[in-house]
Amino acid sequence: MSVPEQVPGEHMAAEISQEPSVLASIVERQSEFADVAEAIAKRPPRFVLLAARGSSDHAAIYAKYLIEVLLGLPAGLVSPSTATLYGARPDLRDVLFLTVSQSGGSPDLIEITEIARSQGALTVSVSNTQSSPLAAAAELSVDIGAGIEKAVAATKTYAATLLSLYLLVDAVRGGKGADAQGIGELAQSTLDGSIEGVQRAVDRYRFVDHVLTTGRGYSYPSALEGALKLAETSYLAARAYSGADLLHGPVAAVNSETAVLALTSAGKGGEAMRGVLDAVSGRGADVLAIGSAAADVPAALRINVAQTVEELAPILEILPIQRLALGLSLARGGNPDNPRGLLKVTKTR
Amino acid sequence: MSVPEQVPGEHMAAEISQEPSVLASIVERQSEFADVAEAIAKRPPRFVLLAARGSSDHAAIYAKYLIEVLLGLPAGLVSPSTATLYGARPDLRDVLFLTVSQSGGSPDLIEITEIARSQGALTVSVSNTQSSPLAAAAELSVDIGAGIEKAVAATKTYAATLLSLYLLVDAVRGGKGADAQGIGELAQSTLDGSIEGVQRAVDRYRFVDHVLTTGRGYSYPSALEGALKLAETSYLAARAYSGADLLHGPVAAVNSETAVLALTSAGKGGEAMRGVLDAVSGRGADVLAIGSAAADVPAALRINVAQTVEELAPILEILPIQRLALGLSLARGGNPDNPRGLLKVTKTR
Repeated sequence: MSVPEQVPGEHMAAEISQEPSVLASIVERQSEFADVAEAIAKRPPRFVLLAARGSSDHAAIYAKYLIEVLLGLPAGLVSPSTATLYGARPDLRDVLFLTVSQSGGSPDLIEITEIARSQGALTVSVSNTQSSPLAAAAELSVDIGAGIEKAVAATKTYAATLLSLYLLVDAVRGGKGADAQGIGELAQSTLDGSIEGVQRAVDRYRFVDHVLTTGRGYSYPSALEGALKLAETSYLAARAYSGADLLHGPVAAVNSETAVLALTSAGKGGEAMRGVLDAVSGRGADVLAIGSAAADVPAALRINVAQTVEELAPILEILPIQRLALGLSLARGGNPDNPRGLLKVTKTR
Repeated sequence: MSVPEQVPGEHMAAEISQEPSVLASIVERQSEFADVAEAIAKRPPRFVLLAARGSSDHAAIYAKYLIEVLLGLPAGLVSPSTATLYGARPDLRDVLFLTVSQSGGSPDLIEITEIARSQGALTVSVSNTQSSPLAAAAELSVDIGAGIEKAVAATKTYAATLLSLYLLVDAVRGGKGADAQGIGELAQSTLDGSIEGVQRAVDRYRFVDHVLTTGRGYSYPSALEGALKLAETSYLAARAYSGADLLHGPVAAVNSETAVLALTSAGKGGEAMRGVLDAVSGRGADVLAIGSAAADVPAALRINVAQTVEELAPILEILPIQRLALGLSLARGGNPDNPRGLLKVTKTR
C-alpha cells in the first residue's frame, strides 16, 4: 500500500496554526462547563485529585494551581501505580477526581478512574474524544473539543486542555469565563508577534546540547511541557525545574553551555523568577526569556507573548515554545509529526 | 584566618559510610514514631499533604506512596507557591500536613506550615534539626536523627528521612517497624557488596554527557534523587522520569549516547520496569541496573542491592547511587562536599 508523501512537520505546523480558532471555539462553549460545574456543586468536594500522564500531566499541574488558588481546595496529583500496581484503595468520598487524557485511551488512567469511582469519588474525565473508554468510565465528562490531532506531539490539544480546565474551575467558582474572552485573538497576536523571535531562537539553538526550562507558579507547567516538547520532537535532553527547585541543587549543573528557557509572564510567578535568572545568568547560562514580561529580565534573547491575567498566561506562552520545538526539530533534520519510537496513545499500566 | 586543607569529598564519603549506623539507630527509636502516630490517631486525617523541596521532596514522594498504599489515604504534594505567592488559603480540616526539611530552615516551608496550621491541618515537621524554626512552627515533630551533615549534597539525611517516614507511616497503621529490623546491616552489606560495581560505573561514565534515571512505584523517588545527586555533585545534566512517563514522550530523546540508570528492585515496581528497559535498550541506550533484581534485566552493567520488602528498597538502592555520584564527581575533578554555587539551606520564597 502506498502512503502519500508527507512534508515533515506539516501536521504539527497546521495544528499550531489552528490554536487561536480552537481556543476561541472553546470559550463559545462556556455553558457546557457551567453544566458540569453545576453537577459538581451538588456534591461539593473537600479535596481534588488529578490523574494524567505526559502533556496532560502538565495540564493537570496547571489545574492544581487553579484549584488551590481560585477554589481554595487542597489538590494532589495521583500516582496511578499506587492503585494499579500496589492495589491501594483509598477512601475517596468528598473527593473530586479529574482524569485528564487527550486520547481518553490510556489503560492505566481508565483503570484508576474506575477505581476512584468505586471508592466514592465524583469522577470527571477531561478528554478530546467524547466516545473514549475514559469518558465512559467517568460520571461526568468535559470535552476539550480541539478536533483531531494528527501529529504525535500534542500542541492544540495541550492549549485546549488548559483552557478547558480553566473554564471548568472558573465555572465551579461561579464565573462565566470573562477573563478568557478574546483568548483566541491574543493567541493569534502571540503567534504573529513571535515569528521573528522564534526564528532567532531556532538559529541560536540549532547545535545546543543542554537545555533547561524553568518557571514558577502557573508557568511551572509551561516549563515542564516545553521540556517535553523539545525532548520528543528535537531529541534534546531538556530538563524542567520550578524556579524554586532549580536553586535547590540542579543549578550546580548550569554553565555557559546551558540554554535556559525561562517563563517570565507578568504576575507573581514571573516576578519570582528574577532571583532565579540572576543565579543562572551569573553562571554564564544563555537565557531565552519567554512571556509578557520578557522585556523586564536580563536575557540573551526574548520572545514576547500577549498579556492576559496571570492564570491564563500558560495558554499563550506555550505557543511560541511549540513553534520553537517544531522549528528546531526541522532544523536538526527530524520529523516532529512522527518522532522516532513514539505512539499517540501510550499503553502503560 | 587559615582554613584547614580539605580533601575533596571527605565529608560526603564519611557521611555515606555512616548510613548503616544512622539507620540502625533510627530503628531503635521506634517508640518516638509511635508517640507521634498516637497523637495523629486522635485526629484521624482524611487526606495527607506533604511539603518539601530538593532531596526532601523526593522523600516526600516516597512517603506519598507509603501513605496511599499502606494507609489507604489520598495524598498530595503541596506547591508552596500557591500559598506563599498567590495567597491560597484552602480549608485544611481533616488534613495531616507533613513538612519534610532536613535543615528545617527554608522560609517558604516554615511559612506554608504556619498557614496550614492556621487553616486547620494537623501539622507535623520531619526534620534533622529539632531546634529548627520549622519544628517550632509545627504541632508535632519527628526527629530524623542523622546527626550533623557537612557535605552540601544530602546523603545520610536522605536515607534517614526515608526510614523516618516509613516508621511513622508504619506506626500510624499500628506497626512496630518489624520489616525495618536489620536495615542497618542490609545497608552495610549493600555498601560493601557494591564497591566493585560502583567503581566500574564510575569508570564507564567518566565522560558521559547524557544521563537519564528511571524507576517505578516506590523506586521512582530513587530515580529523582539519583538525578539530583548527579547534577549537584558531578554537574551532569541528568533527567529523571517514572518508567511510565518516560514512554510518554521523553524516550524519543534516548539513543546510544544515553546512560540509563534504572532502578530494578524485587517487587511490583521493578517488574513493571521490564517494558521500559526493553524500550530504552532497543534504542541503543547503555543501561546500568541498580537494585536487588538487577540480575533479572538486560543491562550493560549491574549493581546489586540487598533484598528487603519492596517498601524499604529505596533506602538501600540510593546508597550505591550516592557512592556513584561521589566517585564521578571526584573522577571529573569536582569537590562533592562543596558543589559550586550551592548552599546547605536554600532561601527560596
